Amino acid sequence: MAERADGFTLDEIVSRFGGELIGDGALRIRQVATLVLAGPGDIAFLANPKYRKQLKTSRAGAVILSAANAKGCPLPHIVSDNPYAYFAKVAQWLNPPPEAEPGIHPSAIVETRLDASISVGAGAYIGPDARIGAGSLIGPGCVIGSGVSIGQQARLFANVTVYQGCAIGARAIIHSGAVIGADGFGIAREADGSWTKIPQIGKVVIGNDVEIGANTTIDRGALDDTVIEDGVKLDNQIQIGHNVCIGAHTAMAGCVGVAGSAKIGRRCTVGGGAIILGHLTVADDVNISAATLVTKSISRSGTYTGALPFEPHRDWLKNAAQMRHLDAMAEKIHELEARLAQLEKKT
Amino acid sequence: MAERADGFTLDEIVSRFGGELIGDGALRIRQVATLVLAGPGDIAFLANPKYRKQLKTSRAGAVILSAANAKGCPLPHIVSDNPYAYFAKVAQWLNPPPEAEPGIHPSAIVETRLDASISVGAGAYIGPDARIGAGSLIGPGCVIGSGVSIGQQARLFANVTVYQGCAIGARAIIHSGAVIGADGFGIAREADGSWTKIPQIGKVVIGNDVEIGANTTIDRGALDDTVIEDGVKLDNQIQIGHNVCIGAHTAMAGCVGVAGSAKIGRRCTVGGGAIILGHLTVADDVNISAATLVTKSISRSGTYTGALPFEPHRDWLKNAAQMRHLDAMAEKIHELEARLAQLEKKT
Amino acid sequence: MAERADGFTLDEIVSRFGGELIGDGALRIRQVATLVLAGPGDIAFLANPKYRKQLKTSRAGAVILSAANAKGCPLPHIVSDNPYAYFAKVAQWLNPPPEAEPGIHPSAIVETRLDASISVGAGAYIGPDARIGAGSLIGPGCVIGSGVSIGQQARLFANVTVYQGCAIGARAIIHSGAVIGADGFGIAREADGSWTKIPQIGKVVIGNDVEIGANTTIDRGALDDTVIEDGVKLDNQIQIGHNVCIGAHTAMAGCVGVAGSAKIGRRCTVGGGAIILGHLTVADDVNISAATLVTKSISRSGTYTGALPFEPHRDWLKNAAQMRHLDAMAEKIHELEARLAQLEKKT
Repeated sequence: MAERADGFTLDEIVSRFGGELIGDGALRIRQVATLVLAGPGDIAFLANPKYRKQLKTSRAGAVILSAANAKGCPLPHIVSDNPYAYFAKVAQWLNPPPEAEPGIHPSAIVETRLDASISVGAGAYIGPDARIGAGSLIGPGCVIGSGVSIGQQARLFANVTVYQGCAIGARAIIHSGAVIGADGFGIAREADGSWTKIPQIGKVVIGNDVEIGANTTIDRGALDDTVIEDGVKLDNQIQIGHNVCIGAHTAMAGCVGVAGSAKIGRRCTVGGGAIILGHLTVADDVNISAATLVTKSISRSGTYTGALPFEPHRDWLKNAAQMRHLDAMAEKIHELEARLAQLEKKT
Repeated sequence: MAERADGFTLDEIVSRFGGELIGDGALRIRQVATLVLAGPGDIAFLANPKYRKQLKTSRAGAVILSAANAKGCPLPHIVSDNPYAYFAKVAQWLNPPPEAEPGIHPSAIVETRLDASISVGAGAYIGPDARIGAGSLIGPGCVIGSGVSIGQQARLFANVTVYQGCAIGARAIIHSGAVIGADGFGIAREADGSWTKIPQIGKVVIGNDVEIGANTTIDRGALDDTVIEDGVKLDNQIQIGHNVCIGAHTAMAGCVGVAGSAKIGRRCTVGGGAIILGHLTVADDVNISAATLVTKSISRSGTYTGALPFEPHRDWLKNAAQMRHLDAMAEKIHELEARLAQLEKKT
Repeated sequence: MAERADGFTLDEIVSRFGGELIGDGALRIRQVATLVLAGPGDIAFLANPKYRKQLKTSRAGAVILSAANAKGCPLPHIVSDNPYAYFAKVAQWLNPPPEAEPGIHPSAIVETRLDASISVGAGAYIGPDARIGAGSLIGPGCVIGSGVSIGQQARLFANVTVYQGCAIGARAIIHSGAVIGADGFGIAREADGSWTKIPQIGKVVIGNDVEIGANTTIDRGALDDTVIEDGVKLDNQIQIGHNVCIGAHTAMAGCVGVAGSAKIGRRCTVGGGAIILGHLTVADDVNISAATLVTKSISRSGTYTGALPFEPHRDWLKNAAQMRHLDAMAEKIHELEARLAQLEKKT
């Protein structure tokens, strides 16, 4: 926090993160901001050429941009191959997470031994045999089941639930309301239509540097484990079924659902509201567009889409009426072609 | 509650809310009900002419309806321009929210000063420098971060989480499991495919008279704030991304997702399961149908739709097979037209 | 747990659950596993003929399968008409839920009388007049409102919220973050576009043997009750609106949304991410496919689908462009047919 109040000079920033500085290296930067709202103590970034004209009117102290956008930039600037990632690092340096006071709040119930560097919030519960790494933060109201392991420097915000036996790596960030390790949806149908529950005896294993959004749920495995590899980033309200495996550095936007036993590759991106069915495989480096339903395996990298374009309701009514007649339409075209060919022969 | 036991006469109701009474003003109404289930002490409403025939058999003590539906109504009735809204007000008068006992439950942890009129439930946690308005209710298990401000007469049900620094207006109703102010999904991609987190230094600012459903999540802003204006109504399981702005009196049904930086107008309605992509603008008075994906800005009011009609699976298989050939189909039609024109010339 | 350590012999299993045993009845089974990962102490199952070849290489101690798949099976096996359901029962026998220690954790707040057989976790809150059946488990951080009734042998995991007055049957399993009985989304529009809340005076009534997934929400009724019948199974992140009725033994996968007053039949299945609109009726034994939007009633059993097939984004761009021109396309075909008929007459 002291760091943020004082900020850093452009020289200090470039010395830490690289890049080429054009301008006064002694200029002190106190915060990050958008080009539009930045003031003289702020550093902004330009990643999309669409916003280049904002450079002319911005009051930012400095801006991070690519060589292609740097020409004629009227502001002090840092040239970087990847301005957005550079900006992210500067933003982190200026905004370290608030330091949590180490220690266990008197109202928390802790049934295991914890390192003195760990912070446990009011009313949190940590079960027997749980192991938590040094410097981690367990927010108020969290419930950590027995035998759970969590790596060092992890941050669990308020009201996170982790079921017994799950493993979470170092530097995890887990937001409020997330539930890790609830039973997968394993039920077997009886002859009379009723269901018999299949005990879910696997667990959830989460790698290092994973972020999990608010109210996201990750189910424990049925027989084997559900696996989230290193560096995966999950937004809010995502549902991950039992025995799913998500490859390293894959990122999913809000409201995505992944059904049981799907294997998602590394470095994939999944747009908001997409649904991925179970027992299929998605290759590395695949991008799924928002609201797309993935019904079968995808074996090569690329972008895949399956959404219906929206339109004014009146137009949609007309077009939607035809969506149930596409097969008939295709047949009619086929028939027309045949009849036309017949005629063409005659004349 | 005493009020409800006694109820009100039709005269008292009309004197408070207006409308024209046809029938005995001394009749005492104790509760609201549907036309079908109402008894002599209940008042019902008729808004949809489709249900007009229910008037004949209803045992309701009275009914609220429009002039158009009032002709020949066999029951005592109140004529109103807006029967449903009139009914809502009568229902509220008959069913005031249960009064919470003021005071802080001994098991709650409160690290700020609170007015004596505020009720804090068992095990709730309220952080330093939080400010809460008079007459508000903080349910059991809620976690209110440091520096949060909440207006007067707000009701937060059990297990709501509000992150530090967020602002919530007067008379807010927030249901269990809602998470206000978790980090937005801000990540920058590095050259190796991994992600660097962008600290989310904005907050969430919520106006007056806003209702937020169970397990709904509203992320804090990345650099600026996420804004929910006065009178917005959000159902359950909605996800609002960082830096979204939702205009006053907009209502969204369950399971909607709104991606980052979308600007939604005033008095809009959004149907269940719709997904609105980020960085776009929706005008005032726009209605988005259920399950519609909004991929670009909407500049004029109206109703917009983008859903595929469902059908028996066997039919769907045939039609769906053509959905991937629409472009080819259009080309074939074009070609047929050309060939036909050619023939027509000849003959 | 002792049972699991010792396991059961094949003779004991067949004696309890029936089926025909081929192999050494004295063989001791300690756990269930997949064919691929099973060892000599494990029993596996084969339900899908696709995996039949795994029998040859499996190291399982025994396998459960149908008569059709049993021929030539090299492993000890139990022949059953319904191998998956048989497997489920064996799995349950080998993996009884961990016994919770009866008693109320000192940090829990209980304002009602509870049977000594009930287990209440750390920091849970149970309101006045709540009634909970013998042998039930209320996890840490749960909030059970006043007047709630819960049957015997129910298991509520950590951080479940049940609003006042709701009723839950025997042997319920409710996962963390679920919210039962929050207000339905009942709002009436005023002439100026603002909304008036309609008090939700119904409750939620849940039958016996119901399982509810993590972060699923079930709203209380507006005037009458929301009803979940016996044996219903709901996965995670499902939203059930007010006054919905779900028939016995219906199962819904994750992320489904059901809008207010929908009546869903018995023994239905609903795929992940499907949205069912309100005020409609779905017959018994209906299967809704994943991501399908149900916009009107379904009166006969069968499978119904409404999803757009996904494809490479480049192909989708071309096909999607035509989706807004289907009506025009149909008209063109009609016109072509007429012109062609005209020509055919001439020649």
